[in-house]
Amino acid sequence: MSSFSPALPRAATIREVGLRDGLQSIATVMPTDRKKAWVRLAHAAGQREIEVGSFVPPKLLPQLADTAEVLAYAKTLPGLRASVLVPNLKGAERAIAEGADLMILPLSASHAHSLANLRKTPDDVVAELARIRAARDAAGSHTLIEGGVGTAFGCTIQGEVAESEVLRLMQALLDAGADRVSLADTVGYADPASVARLFEKALKLAGDRFCCGHFHDTRGLALANIHAALQLGVDTGIDLPALLQLRAQVAAWLDGEPTHGSLWRAGLPKTFAQPVAA
Amino acid sequence: MSSFSPALPRAATIREVGLRDGLQSIATVMPTDRKKAWVRLAHAAGQREIEVGSFVPPKLLPQLADTAEVLAYAKTLPGLRASVLVPNLKGAERAIAEGADLMILPLSASHAHSLANLRKTPDDVVAELARIRAARDAAGSHTLIEGGVGTAFGCTIQGEVAESEVLRLMQALLDAGADRVSLADTVGYADPASVARLFEKALKLAGDRFCCGHFHDTRGLALANIHAALQLGVDTGIDLPALLQLRAQVAAWLDGEPTHGSLWRAGLPKTFAQPVAA
Repeated sequence: MSSFSPALPRAATIREVGLRDGLQSIATVMPTDRKKAWVRLAHAAGQREIEVGSFVPPKLLPQLADTAEVLAYAKTLPGLRASVLVPNLKGAERAIAEGADLMILPLSASHAHSLANLRKTPDDVVAELARIRAARDAAGSHTLIEGGVGTAFGCTIQGEVAESEVLRLMQALLDAGADRVSLADTVGYADPASVARLFEKALKLAGDRFCCGHFHDTRGLALANIHAALQLGVDTGIDLPALLQLRAQVAAWLDGEPTHGSLWRAGLPKTFAQPVAA
Repeated sequence: MSSFSPALPRAATIREVGLRDGLQSIATVMPTDRKKAWVRLAHAAGQREIEVGSFVPPKLLPQLADTAEVLAYAKTLPGLRASVLVPNLKGAERAIAEGADLMILPLSASHAHSLANLRKTPDDVVAELARIRAARDAAGSHTLIEGGVGTAFGCTIQGEVAESEVLRLMQALLDAGADRVSLADTVGYADPASVARLFEKALKLAGDRFCCGHFHDTRGLALANIHAALQLGVDTGIDLPALLQLRAQVAAWLDGEPTHGSLWRAGLPKTFAQPVAA
């Protein structure tokens, strides 16, 4: 870990993914005006990168059918990077047409998980990214392309996912034209030691182009894993009291859906000092 | 943190405190035979230090009235360190008489919290520890004495607790005759950065006699804080599947009481490899 520390940032951007990863997992379809209010309040609380939805067929995910409208609204907010998930070239073409700041193409490093969830091999997804890059460049678009390597710490179907395979696919995505790459613990299998090990190798491989980690709290380790990834002293520029108010609002909108976490229940410590906004 | 890493242990002992800190917080009074089964199964799962109860007046905490009987049972299990909480000299005399391996005297570094919860100042508790040490030595007892500094990262009543005050009290406990000292985040105010900072100073001050950290998950940060305290690669020698079975058993016994955590719900990862028992 100590060899990892010197490369650590003193500041990090929190990408809000509740509008995509949260809403796609539940039955409730949130009205567009509430999604816009969510984006507005998150921006007001200091969040500067929001994944507003996914350009997938509305038939598959009706919860995200209004992604274009939410994206258009997000683009009106100053200093906000509005990103979308795209499953394939078709989704990427919409992201380019709608002027997303960033589009994320998910790849699953687990062959079995990739076939089960995306009905493609990981290398098929790499090939798709090359086509997306060609389309982006042909359109003269400024939409950044991120290749997101999921199940990077193991998979509920095949179990172990080799680090060497994760790193091979990360390199392949960069070679195919990804502007940036990220790692995701899609199923909550990571622990602080495996995060430190893989992140160090990913940083060596991709440097600044390795931009992001995405952690699920399935086994309660998300915060410990994020700590392993970032270590100490990171300023996110976020207004936590404002974010907690937003959290209460979203929970009220999702009446009947289970919500998680502890801070909303326990409240901020009396010792909590809001850092000066960046 | 990197200056902290070299001092880190490669192995750590998990002290089970559910029988004391857990049961004292709920209304259910668990029958003694179930407590003994809990101790037996925890020992079978590899736990080697268990806080079996507290020698406080049964009127105050009827949940822990059978501490002497549970302690006597725990002492029959090979290689198990059986510890008890003692609020004062009177409790310590019982711990000595019953032959506890370790007794923990809690002190609250927050003056306001100390007065509200213990009705003593922190320095009154230091003086009590000196009396306990004298009683222990006079009895020719081998019961170890631990001074536990609570509200070490802040307090819900007074807010900030100065690091310098925490360290002063830790030194005072050692000077008064504590064999070991520990730090507790009694109210869940710690974060990984404050843990790393205070633990580094505590290690400098007390060396090997600084033996233990105790973290509450009030704001979801307990695991991240433990990670900050231990960093990487710690082998606890615990059989996690056995511990999860025990967890299910205890939850069934506490029917109707809220329980927490994630691992019992999500299950161990397919990639989980049980380390060879120590």
